[in-house]
Amino acid sequence: MQKKVSQGMVDEWIEHVSAFTQLGKVADYIPALEKQDRENIAIGVYHLDGECVGAGKVENTFTIQSISKVLALALALMDQGEDYVFARVGKEPSGDPFHSIAKLETTNPSKPLNPMINAGALAVTNMIEGTTPDEKVGRLLAFVHELANDHSIQYDQEIANSEYETAYLNRSLAFFMKQHHVIEGSIEELLDTYTKQCAIEVNIKQLARIGAVFANEGKDIESGRQIIPRQLARICKTFMVTCGMYDASGSFAIRVGIPAKSGVSGAVMGSVKDFGGIAVFGPALDEKGNSVVGMQLLEMLSSRLELSIF
Amino acid sequence: MQKKVSQGMVDEWIEHVSAFTQLGKVADYIPALEKQDRENIAIGVYHLDGECVGAGKVENTFTIQSISKVLALALALMDQGEDYVFARVGKEPSGDPFHSIAKLETTNPSKPLNPMINAGALAVTNMIEGTTPDEKVGRLLAFVHELANDHSIQYDQEIANSEYETAYLNRSLAFFMKQHHVIEGSIEELLDTYTKQCAIEVNIKQLARIGAVFANEGKDIESGRQIIPRQLARICKTFMVTCGMYDASGSFAIRVGIPAKSGVSGAVMGSVKDFGGIAVFGPALDEKGNSVVGMQLLEMLSSRLELSIF
Amino acid sequence: MQKKVSQGMVDEWIEHVSAFTQLGKVADYIPALEKQDRENIAIGVYHLDGECVGAGKVENTFTIQSISKVLALALALMDQGEDYVFARVGKEPSGDPFHSIAKLETTNPSKPLNPMINAGALAVTNMIEGTTPDEKVGRLLAFVHELANDHSIQYDQEIANSEYETAYLNRSLAFFMKQHHVIEGSIEELLDTYTKQCAIEVNIKQLARIGAVFANEGKDIESGRQIIPRQLARICKTFMVTCGMYDASGSFAIRVGIPAKSGVSGAVMGSVKDFGGIAVFGPALDEKGNSVVGMQLLEMLSSRLELSIF
Amino acid sequence: MQKKVSQGMVDEWIEHVSAFTQLGKVADYIPALEKQDRENIAIGVYHLDGECVGAGKVENTFTIQSISKVLALALALMDQGEDYVFARVGKEPSGDPFHSIAKLETTNPSKPLNPMINAGALAVTNMIEGTTPDEKVGRLLAFVHELANDHSIQYDQEIANSEYETAYLNRSLAFFMKQHHVIEGSIEELLDTYTKQCAIEVNIKQLARIGAVFANEGKDIESGRQIIPRQLARICKTFMVTCGMYDASGSFAIRVGIPAKSGVSGAVMGSVKDFGGIAVFGPALDEKGNSVVGMQLLEMLSSRLELSIF
Repeated sequence: MQKKVSQGMVDEWIEHVSAFTQLGKVADYIPALEKQDRENIAIGVYHLDGECVGAGKVENTFTIQSISKVLALALALMDQGEDYVFARVGKEPSGDPFHSIAKLETTNPSKPLNPMINAGALAVTNMIEGTTPDEKVGRLLAFVHELANDHSIQYDQEIANSEYETAYLNRSLAFFMKQHHVIEGSIEELLDTYTKQCAIEVNIKQLARIGAVFANEGKDIESGRQIIPRQLARICKTFMVTCGMYDASGSFAIRVGIPAKSGVSGAVMGSVKDFGGIAVFGPALDEKGNSVVGMQLLEMLSSRLELSIF
Repeated sequence: MQKKVSQGMVDEWIEHVSAFTQLGKVADYIPALEKQDRENIAIGVYHLDGECVGAGKVENTFTIQSISKVLALALALMDQGEDYVFARVGKEPSGDPFHSIAKLETTNPSKPLNPMINAGALAVTNMIEGTTPDEKVGRLLAFVHELANDHSIQYDQEIANSEYETAYLNRSLAFFMKQHHVIEGSIEELLDTYTKQCAIEVNIKQLARIGAVFANEGKDIESGRQIIPRQLARICKTFMVTCGMYDASGSFAIRVGIPAKSGVSGAVMGSVKDFGGIAVFGPALDEKGNSVVGMQLLEMLSSRLELSIF
Repeated sequence: MQKKVSQGMVDEWIEHVSAFTQLGKVADYIPALEKQDRENIAIGVYHLDGECVGAGKVENTFTIQSISKVLALALALMDQGEDYVFARVGKEPSGDPFHSIAKLETTNPSKPLNPMINAGALAVTNMIEGTTPDEKVGRLLAFVHELANDHSIQYDQEIANSEYETAYLNRSLAFFMKQHHVIEGSIEELLDTYTKQCAIEVNIKQLARIGAVFANEGKDIESGRQIIPRQLARICKTFMVTCGMYDASGSFAIRVGIPAKSGVSGAVMGSVKDFGGIAVFGPALDEKGNSVVGMQLLEMLSSRLELSIF
Repeated sequence: MQKKVSQGMVDEWIEHVSAFTQLGKVADYIPALEKQDRENIAIGVYHLDGECVGAGKVENTFTIQSISKVLALALALMDQGEDYVFARVGKEPSGDPFHSIAKLETTNPSKPLNPMINAGALAVTNMIEGTTPDEKVGRLLAFVHELANDHSIQYDQEIANSEYETAYLNRSLAFFMKQHHVIEGSIEELLDTYTKQCAIEVNIKQLARIGAVFANEGKDIESGRQIIPRQLARICKTFMVTCGMYDASGSFAIRVGIPAKSGVSGAVMGSVKDFGGIAVFGPALDEKGNSVVGMQLLEMLSSRLELSIF
């Protein structure tokens, strides 16, 4: 007996959380994010039978930001293999903030703790095959097109530019890793690739479908084709549980208990085995950087349908 | 169709891993642990229908060590409630070793990151109700008796004494937390309680049954009585996933993918929803402090029966 | 032409700073310190020709607290030799607070950075010869008697007791070092010795005379007898410059530029080559733990007589 | 009675230490440094009466590397004033290596601990007046010309280029500080300026004369003109004592006891009040990054002439 979400449910949940859109703070570190409307909230659920329901501003698009870390990881694992990737990036959760550099210095040899913190994500993006940023981003977009089954998805050039110009901390992390031979090549090209990756723009149902492919053990929902090898999809979901929600991952695991990855735009993507993909959106963030409304929606969804894996 | 482990399976697995008992290192920090025989390996699986299979040295007893952190957490949560406990101990995984003190200093206000590192475990034990160490240990033993359905379980006095005398690092952690008002009361009494808790002695099937109660959402296997409230059992399993295997928790989640907690004696307890409790034992440890043979057994079990939650 | 301080000078300086006694905060971590009167300010200068001037509450006595770290270091160096002591305690200034434990963990092998931070001071006290706390304290008092040329000096039992009971952080540091074999023996006995050492009680002229012996290359002022070997006295003064004023040592070196050690009671002892010993007192402390009035007095003295060594 | 070094003394010292030129390791992080001849050792002493003696390879030139941190600090202090500079860079010694980034992260607000670690030195160079790297470097060279009384001094373009290309860690530090608003402007321009500053090329007597100006309270030796305000010269010497010899500053203060700053080329500059400037050179470094032969020369000089300020 498979668990299903109905249109009535998502409508009700959106109505419920629309009372809380004034809570939290819209990310302001780049102007393009700051101007997001905090009323633009949405939820989408993509079941493994192909059925998809959505509510809220389902036509609104947003950038995926840190959610792209999961997609880049899947692609890098497919490009280079597990051994290569995990020789350069660790598998352990971190008690530090996602942008922290101190652990890179105290770990000997220097190695980012996992692919979900910024240092690890930069190292992972650096491992995507391609000789130029355009080629790497092109390959990542092609991968996203497959996952979302939509070849129109692009990155937002303005947001990418804006992030590129102000990405001082990521440059600091990248140069530190270059010094310690964790990464090679041009840092500016890496930053170019990384900021475009973060600026990939989707709507709520596209994101839910991407999540559904991970939930479906890497297989395309309609065709059943294996887009991501099963073991690699599983690895991605594991990181979503242990370190997908910044340094609120532990409490999210207790409160909600599903594999999920959030981004600073206010989006969260979830992937639940035998159920489907979930996407929620709400630009206002809590102090940990996770969407306030998104967290509420996921908590309602998980408790109502008993989705917790624990 | 429920997944089941047969006697033939556990026999085969034990035979397979018996070739690897010379790998790893038996814990030598106290004499009582050091004299464990590295050939004493065992596995036990306690299904939710009450069926239990075991192989290897199933009569051998061993101390539960850090596995007790899960049991003490469950009891403290029942004694004090979620809010009280998590006001004093965090919920986030840590990238630091289990005995680390540095994060206590850099976190402001000082608060152990989670109940599975030593600092957090000491704080949790301190929250168990009881006015004396004997009363606290007595209550914990009574709880264990229920979980294992065996009222004969005791702690090993010699091992408790031995650990008590050499627990300098735990004293350091405890005094640091006392300074910062994370814990109150006598440190020596706390250490007395904590070292007895770690020295609770079980055999492989008793441990598997304890794991089974957590797998069974806190309900007794035979009687169905709710020993641990469902939500609290779930919290315990969440910590087992995010920080149950010391600083190999992340790679264990990828490799095996089940809630599990290891101890330095060489025991590991696992709890799998809709399946049952698992206990493995092998005194020789890998460099992270987890049983070498135990990890192999869990990996075989998880892959053969597809138990990964991811 | 030797520089000299006249009675008129010290009277003038005390009058000047008496306007500032309401600034700062009297240490409140033990009741015995908290009840100090913030009006009890004083200065004493003991010239190398034996002349001594003082102003303010010159009869008032106070405990030397962290100033004792210099005295214990001198005695331990005399007892064990440079090589022995510095194999266990480092010589480098630290950018961390005096009570910090994190660096003990990240330094491998664990070793306190210098004898002026609490960890290093505990390790130094542990190296004073003597089989019991009483014997160690007795030897340290005998040493102080020589330095001050006054055999009546004792420790304040009430303050020692009070500090002993609440010294959780120092116990944490001590147990951490015991775990890492930086120190051996009973921690409670070490704390007993250490808290008595900190509670040694002097008046302003006694403290100035102690400082004068260090200024005089370790020789007694009147008799010329070498109480401390010249090289060891010099080592002590070096630590007073690089780490004598907690984590304000660097700015103190710029602002005042003389070897000096402060204590949380509000006392500071200075030692200036070719000049003499200086003691200042004022219970109210700045945010770094140094006497507000004491700092002003030292700054006036240093600038007026051009005492900076830089 | 002023202390003087004779030609015979420096000849004897150079002969003595020439037996030790095979000890230590020539810096190899850039090819231009690696090819230095470890036999090229030298000493120069510039007395305050204008007399200068030298021995060893006195015609050999070398780059000043980290010694430039002192010169840039003096210039930045003259350009911007004490308050401005120390609002952005601290005054306290650090227990961390000179290239460490972790403390920048744990200090709140982020601020380099002192101007002698790389982070602080980069921030200081950023404060030198000038709108382009060429203008800043030009002003610094003009300042060096005055200090050395030699207008021919230039930087070594090859070494500057070489360091510029591989300065990943300094870029990491600089971007980190840019993120935290410790520094502003172009990081590449800052690195351009900084690597040229480090590549300023002198011979031993020129360096000794620079040291002599600091020893002479900032006044030109021959003309008596105040090149650096007295208070600023004193501040520079204070940093030379508390953090001039990397993380061996504390033990150097005990062993030698004079204000000194070392560079990775193998040069050390010392400044002793009422005595003069000292320069020693020897490319082979000890494990802390200080010249092996240079340390021996300074130790002999200090002990023979009793120059220790302690």
